[in-house]
Parts: sequence; structure tokens; C-alpha cells
Amino acid sequence: MKRLLSGIALVLAPLPALAAPPAVPEAGVTPGAVVAAAAAGEWRRIAPGDLVVMDLAPLAAGPAGASAPRRVVIQLIAPPFSQGWVENIRKLAAAHWWDGLAIVRVQDNYVVQWGDPDGDDPRKARPLPAGLRAMAERDYVVPVRSAGAGKTDPALAIPDGGSWASDPYVQGAAPASPAGLTGFSGGWPIAYLPRGPHEDGAGGATGRMVGEAWPVHCYGSVGVGRSVSPDTGTGAELYTVIGHAPRQLDRNIAVVGRVIEGIEHLSSLPRGTGELGFYETAAERVPIVAMRLGSEVPGLPAYEYLATDSESFARYARARANRKDDFFIRPAGGVDVCNVPVPVRRAR
Amino acid sequence: MKRLLSGIALVLAPLPALAAPPAVPEAGVTPGAVVAAAAAGEWRRIAPGDLVVMDLAPLAAGPAGASAPRRVVIQLIAPPFSQGWVENIRKLAAAHWWDGLAIVRVQDNYVVQWGDPDGDDPRKARPLPAGLRAMAERDYVVPVRSAGAGKTDPALAIPDGGSWASDPYVQGAAPASPAGLTGFSGGWPIAYLPRGPHEDGAGGATGRMVGEAWPVHCYGSVGVGRSVSPDTGTGAELYTVIGHAPRQLDRNIAVVGRVIEGIEHLSSLPRGTGELGFYETAAERVPIVAMRLGSEVPGLPAYEYLATDSESFARYARARANRKDDFFIRPAGGVDVCNVPVPVRRAR
Repeated sequence: MKRLLSGIALVLAPLPALAAPPAVPEAGVTPGAVVAAAAAGEWRRIAPGDLVVMDLAPLAAGPAGASAPRRVVIQLIAPPFSQGWVENIRKLAAAHWWDGLAIVRVQDNYVVQWGDPDGDDPRKARPLPAGLRAMAERDYVVPVRSAGAGKTDPALAIPDGGSWASDPYVQGAAPASPAGLTGFSGGWPIAYLPRGPHEDGAGGATGRMVGEAWPVHCYGSVGVGRSVSPDTGTGAELYTVIGHAPRQLDRNIAVVGRVIEGIEHLSSLPRGTGELGFYETAAERVPIVAMRLGSEVPGLPAYEYLATDSESFARYARARANRKDDFFIRPAGGVDVCNVPVPVRRAR
Repeated sequence: MKRLLSGIALVLAPLPALAAPPAVPEAGVTPGAVVAAAAAGEWRRIAPGDLVVMDLAPLAAGPAGASAPRRVVIQLIAPPFSQGWVENIRKLAAAHWWDGLAIVRVQDNYVVQWGDPDGDDPRKARPLPAGLRAMAERDYVVPVRSAGAGKTDPALAIPDGGSWASDPYVQGAAPASPAGLTGFSGGWPIAYLPRGPHEDGAGGATGRMVGEAWPVHCYGSVGVGRSVSPDTGTGAELYTVIGHAPRQLDRNIAVVGRVIEGIEHLSSLPRGTGELGFYETAAERVPIVAMRLGSEVPGLPAYEYLATDSESFARYARARANRKDDFFIRPAGGVDVCNVPVPVRRAR
């Protein structure tokens, strides 16, 4: 039953609407000021077990501070989107599987990728831990269902469609499909595609399907590298987005987390000169000293994110869509889901 | 009359539609394959006078190849969007004004900015060349008019609205405003906002206004840094986008070009640790050895871009919106304007 959302609070926070007239901007209120004024109770602590910490080898030489550690902190995505991949990543981190492996690919305006440089060579590849789950392409999306009899499950609080943002990457296959939407659920940017009446699945006592949802690729998103279909990857090969949101990857590859601190250690790496930005020599690769679950890292700060169902998050999203202050003279009146990064901070 | 488009071919290339059903993907046809197969006549040569070449000081030390030059090639935007800013940039480059100045700011997922580090200190600032034009906030957009009497100017070939992509950042202020659209014109990604009937401007013999258009901020876009409104900048302070498209800057700051080669020399720079990503010490700044008009650079290769009104560009945009090959299993059926980078190559 893992693919059904019954009992899981998928609370979808609205983005400023596309079709509706722009909301009246709160003049002079910047997104940063809204976040700074958020109440303590609107922040959610991230459990250390939901963090993965990757320490890269310090820069060998160069400008001042080059010998400082390069630490990247990744938050793992929450259920129901975590699927089996996040379980695999926890296993790999617990086994210290990534230690001594490397960043192998840096493609400009696209991704940084890391894993086993010898992964394609069966004689040299590092063995994977036992018990990793095999996932399927259907797991890229999470079915969303109603409580049956036309009544929406109270746990699935989808606001009125008009208060959501439509999005070019969220479309049904059939011409009569209702428009897809993007917003936030449980602290994550997601897409939601309702099914048209003619697309309703089998109903019955457990309720009928009302659509599907999936996490989207934004700057800083972490995903599971894979080979060609139907392979979906184990989670051993990971990547982070370092450019404009490659939304074409949505529903084609698993999003399993996001970088919440230290992304500059990835985004500022020299670009690879090989095909797809792969480093051409072993010397160019950036060694991974250690990659650990946050619960295994002594002295790791506590982190928290701004709840996406909070009033402050709604004001923050409106402010992102309606920049109006001493600098911004003409608010756009809208924003795309990847231009509303979920605020994350060290806990106070 | 510079603000009217009469006689200027503003040919708007369609993006795959948002509301229409997804086009049937051409299975196995990748965007790269479409571009590689484009006919020679579909490419447009970029005049050397429309290029600016910025040479950064080589890396002082470090990995192999670190002493190679760091050359960034920028294409200046075409009329009618060039306005007076591009004229100013040509004057500044001809005066070798940037030589010896520096990159002063690198903010992750946002911009790299360069100019005079002492620009805010009147005693130390480098004097600007005489005759730079002062531009106004109204110049961030270009009015688009019809030929009068309800007849669209043949030079303004706006396709049917249904074949364009609506966009959250392109909205009119009034509730009844028609939806704005994004697409391509003359090789550049632009937004176009028609005016509603009640917003029609003064008419007369020269025709009535039908809307306005402006260039949009995508990865690699080059814009004119400025202070708070109503300052609009001269063009002496420039920036390049190195992250997710900051579309909130559209209509708030001037887009004057794009990086067509060497953006990795900007996007991989160490991030500044000061406020807004400014470098905190002079030692961190990256010196500009020279910045020149392309017509002044000996041995510069010729560049060309794929005409955005060509059949191959249309196929390329459709392929970007409908990725379907050995890797992509589920085409999105849509794409945002900044995820369709205009192909540019060295001329063959």
C-alpha cells in the first residue's frame, strides 16, 4: 500500500496563481524580511537521519582558505516521495560506501555527479551493499486518491485549482486532461496532475484515483543517476542540479533530496571537458573523503525548514512573485515553482 | 521613433503550447540531433561588432591547464531591444574602459558581476567616456503596435496565441488583461504582453499600440547592473546569470546580451562571501585583462546562431519539450522559455 496516500498529509501549499490577477504586492516587503519575521513555530526541525553529509577533499592549493573543508549537506526527501531510493541511500551511507569515491562529472548549467568511477567495469566496480531495493519507472510518481464517493480525503488538502500555478511541464497525455499544477507539500516543491473524468482508475471501497504527484527538479535538487530505461538506478550514483531547472527530468528520474548547505562546493567546481561534462582524467576528479548520515556526524548543526503550509511561507511565496521594493519597480505577478526555494536555516 | 516596431521584423517563434495537448514527440529525435541536421541556410552569422570579448587573467596556480586564457564571448542583443545600453557598451569597449577592472561579485544561483570596484567612490572611480546615453525605466520594454485599423503590422508576425506558451512572469496589471506569452524573436527569448481592449493607447494615423515586448532573463543572460530606481545603469557595470532564471528581474533591469562561449569561466568562480556574494577582499577579485568589441579582436572565430524563425528551430523547441529517446521515457509536453537555449556555434 506504499503507493497510496491515505493517511499521509499531502498538504499542497499554493503558488500565486497564473490565471488570476496578480495579488497586490505588499510594498517594501522583501522575501527575506518575511522569512526573518516567521514565528519559531513555523519552522520544522530536520531529523539528523534525514541528512546526508558529504565531505570533499580540501582544495590542494590556491587562494586563502583553500584548505578549509568542503562540506555539502543534503536533506533526503520525505515520504511518500522518498520511495525505495532513499532507503537505499541510507544503507549506502551507513556502509560508508561512497568514502574514497569521487565527483566524476560537472556539466555547466546542468549537474554535478558522483559515485564509483569504475562502476561500469564489473572487474573493478566497488560491490554494492546487500539488500538494496530495485525500483521501477512507475515509482517516479506517487498516485493520489480520494476518500471515495467523490469526497476528497481530508489528508489530501488540495486547494482550489485556481489558486495554484499551472506549469508547462505538468500536462496530461489526453487532450481533455485537466491542467497540472505545481506547489509545495511537506516542505518540497512538487507537481500534481489530476486525472480527467475519463481517466479515472478502478474505484471500489478504497476510493478512486484522483491523480498523481511527483517531486520536481530545481536548482540544488539531488537525484539518482541511471542508465537507459528501464534501469532506474540504485541511489549509488547521485547528482545535484547546478543550473536552470531541468524539468524535463521530472518523471524520468528520481528526485531524492536537495542540498541545503555547501552547494557552492559543487557549483563552483571546474567543468569537465569530456562528453556530458565528465572529467577526462582521474586527476581531475574530486575525492569524496566521507559521506555519512547526519546522525553519524559529530557536532553537526541542527537544521530546520520553513513549513510550506505556514502563513509565513504563503507570504514568502507571494513576495517572491511580487517583488516590490526600492530596487524592484515592476512586480511580475507570478513565479515558477523553482524560483521559490524553500527557506532552510541552522536552528536557533 | 525608436520605440516603435514598424518596419522591424519582430518574428515571434512559437513555444510548444501550454494549454494545447502535447505534440506527438518524434521518438528518438534528440534536440542535439535536430540542431546538427539544420540546413546551412538556417544559421545566421553574428557580426563581430555585435560581440564583446572579455579576457580574464589566467588562474594563478592549480590543476593542469590553469594557465590557459579565460575568454568569455558575449553577443549583444539586437534592435529593438538593444536600446541605448548596447550603444553605451560599444562606447565603453571601444574606450577599453574595462581593462584592468575586475569581477567583483559571484552569488551562487544568481549572478557574476563585473565593473569598477571603486565605482561608488567619486574620488577613485574611473571616469566614464563622454556621451553615454541616459536610459529610463520605460526602456525596459519595447512597445509593439499594429499597422492600424485593427490590422496587424506584417512585420509583427505574432502567431496565434494558442501556439504560444503562457508564462507566470508575463501578466498584465488589470484583471481582464489577456495572458502574456513567451517565445523567440530575432534569435532572442522574449516576452510579449498584449494589451486588453480597455488598455489601448492613443491611436491615430500611425496605428494603435497592441502591447509590449521585452527580453527575458535566462541562464547566461547579460544585464546592466544598477542602483535603486529610477537609476537604470549606464552599462559600465554588467552581470551574467549563473543560476535558475531570475525572471523577477524582467522589466526591472536591462538585458543586453548573452554569453555564447566561455560561461564556465564565470559560473565556476569561487562564490563571494560578502553580502550579495560580493568579494570581501581585493585579492579575491578576478582581474579583467581586456574587454573588446569582437571587431577589435584578431583571430576571433566567426559565430552563428540558429534562426529562431527557422523550421529547424521549431523542431528543436518541440524536441526540448518532448524528450523521448533511450533515456527519456515520459515527455513533459511543454517547456519554459529559458529551457530552450538558442543554439550558437562556431561558423563552419
